Amino acid sequence: MKFKREDLPVGTPVVGMVGGGQLARMTQESAIALGIQLRVLAEGETVSAAQAVADAPVGDYRDPGTVRRFAAETDVVTFDHEHVPTELLRALEAEGVKVRPGPDALVHAQDKAVMRQRLDTIDAPAPAHQVVASKADIEDFAKRIGGFPIILKTTRGGYDGKGVWVCTSAEDPVVDEAFATKVPILAEEKVDFVRELSAIVARSPHGQAVAYPIVESVQRDGICVEVTAPAPGLDPDKAAHAQQTALKIAGELGVVGILAVEMFEARDGRLLVNELAMRPHNTGHWSIEGAVTSQFENHLRAVLDLPLGSPAARAPYTVMVNVLGGDVEDMHLGLLHCMARDPGLKVHFYGKSVKPGRKVGHVTAYGDDLAEVRERARHAAAYLTGTIDE
Amino acid sequence: MKFKREDLPVGTPVVGMVGGGQLARMTQESAIALGIQLRVLAEGETVSAAQAVADAPVGDYRDPGTVRRFAAETDVVTFDHEHVPTELLRALEAEGVKVRPGPDALVHAQDKAVMRQRLDTIDAPAPAHQVVASKADIEDFAKRIGGFPIILKTTRGGYDGKGVWVCTSAEDPVVDEAFATKVPILAEEKVDFVRELSAIVARSPHGQAVAYPIVESVQRDGICVEVTAPAPGLDPDKAAHAQQTALKIAGELGVVGILAVEMFEARDGRLLVNELAMRPHNTGHWSIEGAVTSQFENHLRAVLDLPLGSPAARAPYTVMVNVLGGDVEDMHLGLLHCMARDPGLKVHFYGKSVKPGRKVGHVTAYGDDLAEVRERARHAAAYLTGTIDE
Repeated sequence: MKFKREDLPVGTPVVGMVGGGQLARMTQESAIALGIQLRVLAEGETVSAAQAVADAPVGDYRDPGTVRRFAAETDVVTFDHEHVPTELLRALEAEGVKVRPGPDALVHAQDKAVMRQRLDTIDAPAPAHQVVASKADIEDFAKRIGGFPIILKTTRGGYDGKGVWVCTSAEDPVVDEAFATKVPILAEEKVDFVRELSAIVARSPHGQAVAYPIVESVQRDGICVEVTAPAPGLDPDKAAHAQQTALKIAGELGVVGILAVEMFEARDGRLLVNELAMRPHNTGHWSIEGAVTSQFENHLRAVLDLPLGSPAARAPYTVMVNVLGGDVEDMHLGLLHCMARDPGLKVHFYGKSVKPGRKVGHVTAYGDDLAEVRERARHAAAYLTGTIDE
Repeated sequence: MKFKREDLPVGTPVVGMVGGGQLARMTQESAIALGIQLRVLAEGETVSAAQAVADAPVGDYRDPGTVRRFAAETDVVTFDHEHVPTELLRALEAEGVKVRPGPDALVHAQDKAVMRQRLDTIDAPAPAHQVVASKADIEDFAKRIGGFPIILKTTRGGYDGKGVWVCTSAEDPVVDEAFATKVPILAEEKVDFVRELSAIVARSPHGQAVAYPIVESVQRDGICVEVTAPAPGLDPDKAAHAQQTALKIAGELGVVGILAVEMFEARDGRLLVNELAMRPHNTGHWSIEGAVTSQFENHLRAVLDLPLGSPAARAPYTVMVNVLGGDVEDMHLGLLHCMARDPGLKVHFYGKSVKPGRKVGHVTAYGDDLAEVRERARHAAAYLTGTIDE
């Protein structure tokens, strides 16, 4: 560890986060405030979070020795992503390392088949689903739910739309593509939804939990591009139901830290669980300025078993729009226009080089008037990306 | 530099901050968000800001070679404190380094005699004052302003009440103490004030400036202990006058970055300039949660000549109370009680070991009801310090 315990004030918690992406980077903002020493196990010397923390050893999160040495110098280990092998985490936990969320919870965010099976046992509402191993299985599943199209997903390793396919028949070429991944494939009902919602909760080891306002998220090509908090026009009973569902999942699965439950608001009125993530989540970035306690701060408080902070919204509406890589290589140039146009705009850059479609930052606006707040955030993101020039 | 330019996204600004205290540490929170690479010239490997940034070379800020090498790898140099010698900064500036605030402005925050002289020329309201070199000078000055007690101050190097004395006669022992510093001594009228106010403005090189709401600050033993934003019950004309005075000073002196103007609200109604600081200031910490744009973010935006963010308050009242070192060595223990009692409380620890009276953190509360907000912040600070235990 870069700092010895005696170099830090007495009682300073050391949190180890596996993964050096933007989630670890943004977690550091809260760690600094709370006097927490954040160590990051980074994929490389110069990744997003490595630019922002004092202590970011480089190492492979799949290597038991590397993760063990990293964990040994922390009070608790948590995650920027879900890719650390479950067995490795079980071994660490058996050795006495505090792993939060623990492997028995995290596996539900790592393996979609395990997740579906478990949520069924607690009666969490979900799309129809079935693990499929052949074209015949796919045919049977489609027949059972009333026909194609259906969704195929890899049970492990997918993110941001990767590992998800719309399948129109058992002969659809995506079937071969899916099976070629060599990862078990889950077939799911293609939900006819009005919109996507996200329920974010934080839960601590001693069982305290808080629920953020339910937000509306817009996905494009499988990537979250826009979040509105709270979800406009959402029926209060439905919102409460969504929060309760997320709290129930967090409790039943023993989640510690942030749990994001992505849901479909189906046209037939159902709220169906789509995905789970057990870490700060793109649909919670609005909380940095939009809530009393950001998801990053509450994740840290939860994994350290500190009392959780209020998740209440600070403004009637907060809109976050992701900044995706476009044609403009120097993202900082656009700040002159965006900041001059909107002195209330909040910009977040992730220290990532521009690649087409890559999430390189996000912008947040808040205020009383939803249409105006949306326009401000959308305009800034589009300008920074380079899709508009005024 | 730890990161080469090509390791960072194209256009990433590199800001060098001289000094590794809590102001640099808190600046890093904003730098992370804005995708700015913050380098800190630190006093030691483990100082407050060195725990929180990736790149914190250790070096003596009085050594020209050290500061020159540090500056060479940045786009702009700014400061966590006012102690870098003026001549060193003049030399750097002559070599083409962007020093912000520049030495010709900064000298007014370094030397109180220079400051008093300059403010007189722009008719900024000030207490009566005179540089004194002998007991006879002190006698003359006291006679001129109507008698003792008067204030004696070192013109350079004072902070947090150090280098300031109340002097009751020319034979007062503090006179010898003051002259023993070998620093020129300024005598000032002891202002009979109702309270202390602070006007914080940010100004950029191209002359844009914004003024934060005027705050009330409470000092104890020369240390700022509590700030209320906005200053309760302050006459709006007087508030506007205080803002205009600070904006005028910033413009006339060519300040770039944050300028804090500490003022006395005198019993006779005058607003008198007490001190200047050209960096984020203790009386501006409330702005982290209390304003749309924190003083730390606006300091960075200003030194990079980016458009400034809105300084508007986000809540009717925001109260910040400093956490001073007391008998409790482990400050983190108190978080359990404070966070459980008040889920809206915002805690800031500086990564500093506890020493009696040392500023080791601050807490912020905000809301509609001033009395309640004050009670929340005061309670938390007192509990963390250890002066109350429930």
